[in-house]
Amino acid sequence: SKNYKIAVLPGDGTGPEVIAEAIKVLDAAGKKFGFSTEKKYFDWGGEHYLKTGETLPADAKEQLSKHDAVLLGAIGHPDVKPGVLEKGILLKLRFDLDQYINLRPVKLYPGVETPLANKKPEDIDYVVVRENSGGVYTGMGGNVQIDTPDEVACQNWVYTRRQVDRCLKFAFELAEKRHTKENPWRGLSEEDKKAGYTSQLTLVGKTNVLTYVCGLWERAFNAMAKNYPTVKTAYCHVDAATMWMVKNPEWFDVVVTENLMGDIITDLAAMTSGGMGVASGGNLNPTGLSMFEPIGGSAPKYTGRNVINPLAAIGAAAMMLDFLGEKEAAAAIDRSVAYVTGNKLKSMAAGRMGYSTTEVGDLVVENL
Amino acid sequence: SKNYKIAVLPGDGTGPEVIAEAIKVLDAAGKKFGFSTEKKYFDWGGEHYLKTGETLPADAKEQLSKHDAVLLGAIGHPDVKPGVLEKGILLKLRFDLDQYINLRPVKLYPGVETPLANKKPEDIDYVVVRENSGGVYTGMGGNVQIDTPDEVACQNWVYTRRQVDRCLKFAFELAEKRHTKENPWRGLSEEDKKAGYTSQLTLVGKTNVLTYVCGLWERAFNAMAKNYPTVKTAYCHVDAATMWMVKNPEWFDVVVTENLMGDIITDLAAMTSGGMGVASGGNLNPTGLSMFEPIGGSAPKYTGRNVINPLAAIGAAAMMLDFLGEKEAAAAIDRSVAYVTGNKLKSMAAGRMGYSTTEVGDLVVENL
Ligand SMILES: CC(C)[C@H](C(=O)O)[C@@H](O)C(=O)O
Ligand SMILES: CC(C)[C@H](C(=O)O)[C@@H](O)C(=O)O
Repeated sequence: SKNYKIAVLPGDGTGPEVIAEAIKVLDAAGKKFGFSTEKKYFDWGGEHYLKTGETLPADAKEQLSKHDAVLLGAIGHPDVKPGVLEKGILLKLRFDLDQYINLRPVKLYPGVETPLANKKPEDIDYVVVRENSGGVYTGMGGNVQIDTPDEVACQNWVYTRRQVDRCLKFAFELAEKRHTKENPWRGLSEEDKKAGYTSQLTLVGKTNVLTYVCGLWERAFNAMAKNYPTVKTAYCHVDAATMWMVKNPEWFDVVVTENLMGDIITDLAAMTSGGMGVASGGNLNPTGLSMFEPIGGSAPKYTGRNVINPLAAIGAAAMMLDFLGEKEAAAAIDRSVAYVTGNKLKSMAAGRMGYSTTEVGDLVVENL
Repeated sequence: SKNYKIAVLPGDGTGPEVIAEAIKVLDAAGKKFGFSTEKKYFDWGGEHYLKTGETLPADAKEQLSKHDAVLLGAIGHPDVKPGVLEKGILLKLRFDLDQYINLRPVKLYPGVETPLANKKPEDIDYVVVRENSGGVYTGMGGNVQIDTPDEVACQNWVYTRRQVDRCLKFAFELAEKRHTKENPWRGLSEEDKKAGYTSQLTLVGKTNVLTYVCGLWERAFNAMAKNYPTVKTAYCHVDAATMWMVKNPEWFDVVVTENLMGDIITDLAAMTSGGMGVASGGNLNPTGLSMFEPIGGSAPKYTGRNVINPLAAIGAAAMMLDFLGEKEAAAAIDRSVAYVTGNKLKSMAAGRMGYSTTEVGDLVVENL
């Protein structure tokens, strides 16, 4: 039976509480599906930074690389200047481990309240593939003449063809694989189906303004499309994409986009599918070490109260298992989560679930 | 009695149809409120480009500058490569006329359907001040080694302190002015009110990633805030902003942001307040020539069918009057539009209004 080495970074605020539930579910799934996990805990985060002045140790990458996956709670501390921990831990790990894909499933679970009118679970079920290594996130740029009337600030939005291609390849393959007879994309027209398409991949960009960068994305996208004849391609400007995500989320299947646009639209998407309590993300290096996280943040005001929603962290653990190859276990957790949201929880919001954090973890275990 | 010279650019697709209704309302408002308008029509747009190869004549700026304001229909033609007309006409005019503010009121009119659950007109009533002259819109950058594996694309996101300051000044003044006893900001807490605040200005950025550019915005914002003691300031990352615009639009009063982020969030905002049929924008040069437009695009498939919704164009005309100083007329048009949406129109969507384009224009005139 398989054993996976998991690096666990519970992090700040409510991070440790939600991670504890994710681990509980992970262990139960292991028992049921015949695998085990060996966890090593790392205390990196805001507390550690305040005590030591260190965001990550110099050999963080080396330490983590001994593992099969990383499970992250939340990074963010009210006493640390915004930006320090994000850049020093979260973004640094993404870059150093070359986790060039940020995978964000957007799925409205049964019973989960969406701020959108008249949308049901079958209307909101798509995946965003966000490029996670380039763009403005590289931090190239600078300021001159700071705080004078002549100050100029510049930030470079940079992509290489290689970066774009490897992200697009992942997205096309995901689109190709995502669809089975049981899970056809609901939005394909009869004509599309007759033409042999089984899925859709939408590139989100801003080609009419970001001529150089989105021009590269568009050319690479169109060139690669030829290799995936069953994937219908579409293009959408980022401004319009936010509209359709709110008005017609059922139009989307797999979406691929660059880093900052992906950051923006995935937060919006998370909100449309019930908010931060249930949204998980994977920072993937398909040939290396990947890191999975609930995307909600450290929620300091709920810390230690056993009221935070752990489902996003549990979802992150399920994504991790899926990525490690434990497909059945991942699917079982997903079904259990859907059962719990559909039949148990009163709300997804902290303190209003009708259950405590630990009870929600127990419910997911019971219904595995 | 005053006379205003208006340059009218009906543009493409349904542009001429909606502009005709806006002009109808403008003329009726002039009669009622004692001003007149002298219109000069310009045929710039997709048709003109296809015939002549010219987007704008070399002396476009000179020609327009003889006017007090510009009223634009829509630019965009199915037979013209995307980007050509946007860059060659819309963006070029914004830049050449230094229209450094893009003002986008976000207001849910009575009777207008929003895709958001449980939101009412009193919940959605804010204004976005989008910087309209800088950022990635300057088009600085390039591609090297095009279509080789070594291609690099770069786009520069650039701001000067002067650009940022003039935009922030406009936003702070707007926030200060926007609030009257009859129109208090509904979201201020009792504590805020006791502290003497009457309005709120939210800066939207991404300071944790765009350290240089958003750092400049944040420093300039905090420095300027001291001059506006009644304006409570707030900050929101752009990704989170999209969430709150959907979940808690009642939190926003005046929002200020840079160009691309403004482009993205204003489209989302337009959708939450009923979509493109009712959203107007002003491209403002507060000391020069300004241009007002419905933001919906040219909607080619509805062209010539007398089914498109003209309310966004009528709203653009009202914004123009407000900007020209005809406050009473502008407010009267706004009230009439609210009456028409609340009591007459079945839907805001083209072809489903229960009235034709021209009838909707007539209704607004009748109820002035
Ligand atoms: C914390 C921040 C740097 C991060 C990002 O912008 O990527 C977050 O918003 C996310 O989406 O994971
Ligand atoms: C057409 C396009 C260039 C334009 C923009 O990006 O500014 C549009 O989206 C807008 O918001 O007016």
